Amino acid sequence: MIARMSRLLLPTLREAPADAELPSHRLMLRAGLIRRVGESAGIYALLPLGLRVKAKIEAVIREEMDGVGGQELAMPIVQPAELWQETGRWSVYGEEMWRLKDRHGRLYCLGPTHEEVITDLARHEVRSWRQLPLLLYQIQNKYRDERRPRFGLLRAREFVMKDAYSFHADQADLDRCYRDVYGAYARIFHRCGLECRPVLADSGAIGGSATHEFMALADAGEAEIVSCPQCDYAADVEQGEVAVRPGAAGAAAPVRVATPGARTIAEVAAFLGVRPEETAKILFYRAAYGDGRAETVAALIPGDRELNEIKLINATGALELRPATAEEVSAPLGYAGPVGLSGARLFTDRQIAAGGAWVVGANVEGYHVTGVVAGRDFEPGTQAALSIVRAGDPCPSCGAALTTRRGIEVGQVFGLGTKYSTVLKATFLDAAGREQPMMMGCYGIGVTRTMAAIIEQHHDDLGIIWPKAVAPYHVVLVPVGAGDDGRRAAAAAEALAADLSRIGVEVLLDDRDGRPGVKFNDADLLGIPVRVTLGRALAEGRVEMKIRAAGAAELVPLAEAARAVQAALHG
Amino acid sequence: MIARMSRLLLPTLREAPADAELPSHRLMLRAGLIRRVGESAGIYALLPLGLRVKAKIEAVIREEMDGVGGQELAMPIVQPAELWQETGRWSVYGEEMWRLKDRHGRLYCLGPTHEEVITDLARHEVRSWRQLPLLLYQIQNKYRDERRPRFGLLRAREFVMKDAYSFHADQADLDRCYRDVYGAYARIFHRCGLECRPVLADSGAIGGSATHEFMALADAGEAEIVSCPQCDYAADVEQGEVAVRPGAAGAAAPVRVATPGARTIAEVAAFLGVRPEETAKILFYRAAYGDGRAETVAALIPGDRELNEIKLINATGALELRPATAEEVSAPLGYAGPVGLSGARLFTDRQIAAGGAWVVGANVEGYHVTGVVAGRDFEPGTQAALSIVRAGDPCPSCGAALTTRRGIEVGQVFGLGTKYSTVLKATFLDAAGREQPMMMGCYGIGVTRTMAAIIEQHHDDLGIIWPKAVAPYHVVLVPVGAGDDGRRAAAAAEALAADLSRIGVEVLLDDRDGRPGVKFNDADLLGIPVRVTLGRALAEGRVEMKIRAAGAAELVPLAEAARAVQAALHG
Repeated sequence: MIARMSRLLLPTLREAPADAELPSHRLMLRAGLIRRVGESAGIYALLPLGLRVKAKIEAVIREEMDGVGGQELAMPIVQPAELWQETGRWSVYGEEMWRLKDRHGRLYCLGPTHEEVITDLARHEVRSWRQLPLLLYQIQNKYRDERRPRFGLLRAREFVMKDAYSFHADQADLDRCYRDVYGAYARIFHRCGLECRPVLADSGAIGGSATHEFMALADAGEAEIVSCPQCDYAADVEQGEVAVRPGAAGAAAPVRVATPGARTIAEVAAFLGVRPEETAKILFYRAAYGDGRAETVAALIPGDRELNEIKLINATGALELRPATAEEVSAPLGYAGPVGLSGARLFTDRQIAAGGAWVVGANVEGYHVTGVVAGRDFEPGTQAALSIVRAGDPCPSCGAALTTRRGIEVGQVFGLGTKYSTVLKATFLDAAGREQPMMMGCYGIGVTRTMAAIIEQHHDDLGIIWPKAVAPYHVVLVPVGAGDDGRRAAAAAEALAADLSRIGVEVLLDDRDGRPGVKFNDADLLGIPVRVTLGRALAEGRVEMKIRAAGAAELVPLAEAARAVQAALHG
Repeated sequence: MIARMSRLLLPTLREAPADAELPSHRLMLRAGLIRRVGESAGIYALLPLGLRVKAKIEAVIREEMDGVGGQELAMPIVQPAELWQETGRWSVYGEEMWRLKDRHGRLYCLGPTHEEVITDLARHEVRSWRQLPLLLYQIQNKYRDERRPRFGLLRAREFVMKDAYSFHADQADLDRCYRDVYGAYARIFHRCGLECRPVLADSGAIGGSATHEFMALADAGEAEIVSCPQCDYAADVEQGEVAVRPGAAGAAAPVRVATPGARTIAEVAAFLGVRPEETAKILFYRAAYGDGRAETVAALIPGDRELNEIKLINATGALELRPATAEEVSAPLGYAGPVGLSGARLFTDRQIAAGGAWVVGANVEGYHVTGVVAGRDFEPGTQAALSIVRAGDPCPSCGAALTTRRGIEVGQVFGLGTKYSTVLKATFLDAAGREQPMMMGCYGIGVTRTMAAIIEQHHDDLGIIWPKAVAPYHVVLVPVGAGDDGRRAAAAAEALAADLSRIGVEVLLDDRDGRPGVKFNDADLLGIPVRVTLGRALAEGRVEMKIRAAGAAELVPLAEAARAVQAALHG
């Protein structure tokens, strides 16, 4: 097919609006792929070229999902509250869920995800193990009423996702499907030209246990991941665990020392002449539970570490956690410690519980205690990995020093187990005639986010560099020249466009009036994989072919241009 | 491609739920195409087979829209209120518009249509006549918070539409585009197997002047249309005008007669011994205007006619119209008439204004007046075609007696003119450098509604009869038999499925265990165009081929079955 730029809605810009911070956001606006709708951020229209890229990503997703037995369906965007109330998530989901009422006052939400709806469907339609497994997916708008939408399609309030849900008779079949979809996702991102790293992740609000995130490596990524340069270990920093060094044995008895004015770890370490990693600090949180209870909890971690709040919330079993106020804590600020702690339930990091002597607060204003050993000098309470992993920590798998990278989460696979099927009573009769809850998995890909991530990985100062599989067009033809030369170039471009179209190449023909420099700049900005310039060299029967990703141009005979373009696209 | 029924989410039902009244609603549920989501009506999931049909309709739409120069884009579903406030439609649109707030309290709606968003886009991106024309379309969920959603996909609250908008430098180019899209629509519905009638229609809340509706003829249709059996005249009854007969001249002077107890037209006509069409009645309404004014208006129409409220609202120019209460009317109930009428502005139907003598109320309890002539005995006020057209009325184009049919509105084309571009200041510089508002058209197709309309036109007692172009699969293979016979049949079916798939036929393979009767019933219910049964005749190398629409089965040699199926599909 041939698209003529003079007729397309393709408004390129020399400059992006000032509020566009990231390369993908700037380039999507400048290349005329998207436009913001209305005054407030996070709501976009996809213009024709943007929609073409999205459609190509979707086609890859459909092929790979169908290849692992997926069946596409379409669930509603507007979801009745009653299903969310049944699982309890109506109250758990916070302000990010976009809620609305109908004219009769009934409550609905704009679906952020579809576990409730799909499980409701399954409980009505599936009776027997013979109907399992099922892998169902849809590609659809999703909604998240972000407090601060930004970064264009990376954090929009209306965005497109492929979400999939699977139902199984047993764990083994769920595991098989999890692996299948994991493989399909790796192929999808590879085909879209994305360098991705699957990492172990925390399951957050969706729930369940096994989960991997597919991270597109990019400086613009909001997620921090640790990975091992020696083995294939990789994890979200929130999921990664700090490897525990053996604790030193045989410390002397604890000694209380005056540390007047030394409240922070740095001050205490300097005052006592110890390293920060020999100290331990307590952070107080207020935990709220599903049954209405609330309590103050104390997290004891090494002084040089950051607390992993996700791990603390998991260790407590609380629904919500927030930093405690001064009134909710009985210990003096800056001098809290585990020895003689009162008024708070203690959670101790594994490294501290492993032994060794620590400098801790004395719970008395102006004093710390040295040589404190867990188990001997205080009861460590619940032990958990509470510290955030960081670069240089040893790999838990092979011991090499971990490195950190930033990533954009473009996909996620979850083993949900029976979390939703139990509460929604989605059961089936197994081969022995027993009623069982279905095993479930769920699997997401951010489609519009993938589009943005591809640009984050594939651009230069001049514009986008689309991977061939997702480029809006394969080749852009640029006839240049004035007067008779210009007419000859235009005629040659039309003929070449027809030839290319016949062999299945998608052609963008820059048939606009305008200076060559403007056309070349737009071609670079749009990131079409191959550019063919038809200009002065036509006199000697040649055209200039340039690969966007490579940069160098070469002259090829006009008669061979179609074949050369085809070869470049398949090379 | 080959789909195996044992693996599909394809839950067929013997009976439809009791609240499904129409054939399309019942059959979509029974054939496993859709399922309702949640307790309240109007929100559906499209199951895999339903989604396939929808995708085929969409593919036809895309081809034809692209063929007339359409460019696909995707606008947001969640639209900011500010754009609707700018056109004034935020307050005009009533409870059918589904409104919501974000976490910061800003107002949005779920788009029922996209004139505001697309015109906003055009005013930002189009500067010059060189960028025109533009024909932009999208295929997307739309929302209407119906008071009483029902009839499945015919009147849902969330549904899929193709909506298109065009922008032009002048009226002539808009007219050209209107004709192009009109032609594309005729081809789309024809290719989808729908018998459609384009009719003149009223433009309702969207505004503008020229408009045609595409009506799929069906008893289940909510719209009533009049059409001429002699010429190509057809119109929505709300748009159709009753042809005016010449008024009889030279009536005697009016005479007041006592008509005690005769209030209704039937009673008055019987009491006076005249036909109802010789009487005239007044209907009182309360009209509310955009500037805050309100008044009582009186519509004078022939006694045997129904009032066309749309025409009355257009004649008044009011924003809203409702029947007046007794307090808002000064004339005595059942005895109102145009002579000496006070306290209400009069609107007179063209037939009455054309002359002739009429029996009317005397504005005095218990009295009517005969021989009343408009213009002579009372001032007719505003004259307009206020009666609803009906079967037997003469065709306004050729005079033949009109007939009425019911139809489902599946598409509509509008010439909007500058209604939106003026108020939103969407202007361009013409060739002479003058700033002009863009001319606009808009064009809609109800995609999910088209799906339902196809079933309304194509079904029998056994189930759906899909037209080939939109059938979810082309052929269903049904192997039957027990033991070795069954295994032979299954193997033959697998081989035939592979052969058919290779030549591009989409195969549904009924590989389920189960009785032949169940399989045949499901095949009929699903409405797949061709069924091939592989059973007893296999012993003599033959299979049974049955065309769903025709009913009769024929035996064909197994070796020729693939070719026979292909021929049947192209025949």
